[in-house]
Amino acid sequence: MPHAPARNAETRKADILHRLESDVDAWVATASPDGTPYLMPLSFLWLDNTLLLSTARKNPTSLNIQATGLIQLSLGETRDVVLITGTAELVDSLDDNTANAFAKKAGFDPRPANYPFFRVTPTRIQAWREVNEIPTRDLMLEGNWLT
Amino acid sequence: MPHAPARNAETRKADILHRLESDVDAWVATASPDGTPYLMPLSFLWLDNTLLLSTARKNPTSLNIQATGLIQLSLGETRDVVLITGTAELVDSLDDNTANAFAKKAGFDPRPANYPFFRVTPTRIQAWREVNEIPTRDLMLEGNWLT
Repeated sequence: MPHAPARNAETRKADILHRLESDVDAWVATASPDGTPYLMPLSFLWLDNTLLLSTARKNPTSLNIQATGLIQLSLGETRDVVLITGTAELVDSLDDNTANAFAKKAGFDPRPANYPFFRVTPTRIQAWREVNEIPTRDLMLEGNWLT
Repeated sequence: MPHAPARNAETRKADILHRLESDVDAWVATASPDGTPYLMPLSFLWLDNTLLLSTARKNPTSLNIQATGLIQLSLGETRDVVLITGTAELVDSLDDNTANAFAKKAGFDPRPANYPFFRVTPTRIQAWREVNEIPTRDLMLEGNWLT
């Protein structure tokens, strides 16, 4: 089957930003300091070039973020990849407007259960559909959009 | 929106086995021994209660498996989760029939590029769609189907 032409960088960046605004869930990969991987789907809110997550305080995702500060997230499909590498940190306090926006998008409000929020700052973002997009799959490096 | 009724264990096991036979790609999470997570979509072949993967010898997935032997894989959708935790090992040699079956399903043949194969043995399999399925999401524990 012939591939669709590779998208240019501008198109891919626009596609990524659209997915960050409209997608609700991401696959979230973290690891314990001794190298045990942990994968879990979580809802997110894209805000000010960061992703906001929330999960129970003692879940492995939460413990791993607090131990290593490292995270990867993938949006959606294995044949329409948006792969985000970043740092993550516990949010000390979150204003009500932002928490309300998270609750509305995620469909659940972390506050009554006292779930903490985590902020993910992307350092690298890659996007590809087919093999012809792999050589140019880096759209963000070291926290900076290349386009 | 009301949830669909939770599926019983037999239905979920059948759904998992169907997905293992028919899905082509999985999100594969591994980690380096110092806790850096790595997430990548890879094709797989379900065979004899194991999953066969292949990726370039020096890719992080490959290096992480050889360092830790630990892996998690998720099939498909964030709202129809099949989450597999297991051990992974390099396959020393693979018979041609199995390699052919992998190449046919994955749509690429790892042999000309000399990519190694890895065998994943599931120890825990969980499946859930909505929150009402989470309390009974374990379908396999310690390598044994509960049903």
